[in-house]
Amino acid sequence: MSRTALIAIGGNSLIRAGERGTIDEQLANAHATARSLAGMVKRGWRIVITHGNGPQVGAALLRSERAAGEVYTHPLDVCVATTQSEIGYLLQRAMEYELRQLGLTTPVITVLTQVRVDADDPAFKNPAKPIGPFYSREEAEEKKRRMGWDIVEDSARGYRRVVPSPEPQEVFEQNIIRHLLDQGMIVIACGGGGIPVIEQEDHTVIGSEAVIDKDRASAVLATELGVDLFAISTDARQVYVDFKKPTQRGIDSITADELQKHVDDGQFPPGSMGPKVESAIRYLRNGGKEVIITSFEYLTEAIEGNDGTRIVAE
Amino acid sequence: MSRTALIAIGGNSLIRAGERGTIDEQLANAHATARSLAGMVKRGWRIVITHGNGPQVGAALLRSERAAGEVYTHPLDVCVATTQSEIGYLLQRAMEYELRQLGLTTPVITVLTQVRVDADDPAFKNPAKPIGPFYSREEAEEKKRRMGWDIVEDSARGYRRVVPSPEPQEVFEQNIIRHLLDQGMIVIACGGGGIPVIEQEDHTVIGSEAVIDKDRASAVLATELGVDLFAISTDARQVYVDFKKPTQRGIDSITADELQKHVDDGQFPPGSMGPKVESAIRYLRNGGKEVIITSFEYLTEAIEGNDGTRIVAE
Repeated sequence: MSRTALIAIGGNSLIRAGERGTIDEQLANAHATARSLAGMVKRGWRIVITHGNGPQVGAALLRSERAAGEVYTHPLDVCVATTQSEIGYLLQRAMEYELRQLGLTTPVITVLTQVRVDADDPAFKNPAKPIGPFYSREEAEEKKRRMGWDIVEDSARGYRRVVPSPEPQEVFEQNIIRHLLDQGMIVIACGGGGIPVIEQEDHTVIGSEAVIDKDRASAVLATELGVDLFAISTDARQVYVDFKKPTQRGIDSITADELQKHVDDGQFPPGSMGPKVESAIRYLRNGGKEVIITSFEYLTEAIEGNDGTRIVAE
Repeated sequence: MSRTALIAIGGNSLIRAGERGTIDEQLANAHATARSLAGMVKRGWRIVITHGNGPQVGAALLRSERAAGEVYTHPLDVCVATTQSEIGYLLQRAMEYELRQLGLTTPVITVLTQVRVDADDPAFKNPAKPIGPFYSREEAEEKKRRMGWDIVEDSARGYRRVVPSPEPQEVFEQNIIRHLLDQGMIVIACGGGGIPVIEQEDHTVIGSEAVIDKDRASAVLATELGVDLFAISTDARQVYVDFKKPTQRGIDSITADELQKHVDDGQFPPGSMGPKVESAIRYLRNGGKEVIITSFEYLTEAIEGNDGTRIVAE
């Protein structure tokens, strides 16, 4: 009997530190991740792959802006859509190749994914996620005035647009994804956390100028699919307490309740490990069995229980 | 028993004459087309939707170029990929809405699609398809030198890159698309003619800096799927002989052999009706039953046999 897993890959894992992120670099990195995932498939796993799009969606916004005088612009929801097939195409090609290297012909499919968010999500009143290019103070003032954007000063590099990051409520394509998974196909879905859409009272669906955290969206999809394992592939080999302090130690195995205590102690910063740990806990509290957090190099070992951080319901 | 159809929509049908092609305009046009298609579904058709991407991929190339100094560029195969989800997202949302207006909840799925082309296709020796922005003579010389592009003078508007338009050999995702169609889902696939990929001797698949004619790719997919009807939605209500002459007349119904005679007489210009008519004939000679060529306003009537041009095997 096949076990099922949803593996969430960081958008940064396709563009490594120091890289400009050319398509060739991203494809090479996609192959490294795909080798691990193909190994899982070889050992009998059925998998759904989700991925982030941080650097890619920032580049998409910048491209749209730079050409705005000449061709139509892409609003943020369309930018998220385009990164789904940009990254999906690279991951799919890499997966198909790495599977074939192992003698497998498992079909791989990239599915455009919309995720429902609530119009009255508090995030819409408090846009906090920086996105896209940096601006000078003057440019920032002009964007505020002309586009109605929310802009904040972001580190020493300048001003930056901030957008809402609402909670994912439901993956619109969940039934299709489950069906494909049941058929034994490898599904790439929910790219960049999914295209955020709002369902209005008359059931019209409209795109939203927001981004959804990909780990949170992945947790929702993992719950909807009822997979056996939710794996979060990130930069770090393990989840650490006292990160970067002399007392730093990696967590091998932990329950959701114990991990929640570390969250309450403020162990995990909001921008990096925080959403991953919270997504893991939420998934487990919604009936999930097992979460693994590790980097792609250790994914295979971690799934065997020999590396990374393993989080269980109780 | 459900009948199956593949409907190929022109990329221009999302951006009408005189429109700049904002996403709002494209979405409104997508709704107009989706209303016709939802009507087909209501009457029991199972459908696959393919679409062109002419204006959209041109805009994607221009965006990539204008931001080239700041973020990584998108090669042409990646641009085709991004237009698949840009347009797929708009078409899918429009379809979902128009289906719901008719009381239907048929699932709609947009599938990233790769199409195999031959490395030794003669088109690669004779790049002829103009694409992307216009350049001045100086810019054109620089692109030739620095990027190795083929550039031609295109009308009075300047110089333009030309790329190969090779013959589509096979849709990589054909089995998945057939499966989804059999399940009663509405599939949006093969956008922009599909991402052209070349399979090398070691079975590595590489993206190709080329574009595939969407009607030709649609004919290949329609043959692979064995659909009952191949419909090509275009600007014209019918196929005409003596187009724009005093003797112009629309064709109501014709066999592939009779239509081929008109092709041999040079009735159809290569850039517009030519590829549609040739794709129709090829599909019928490969075992297809029926092709309809019409504009989206007349699609419903044409399927009933009361409008458009109907082409049959014999």
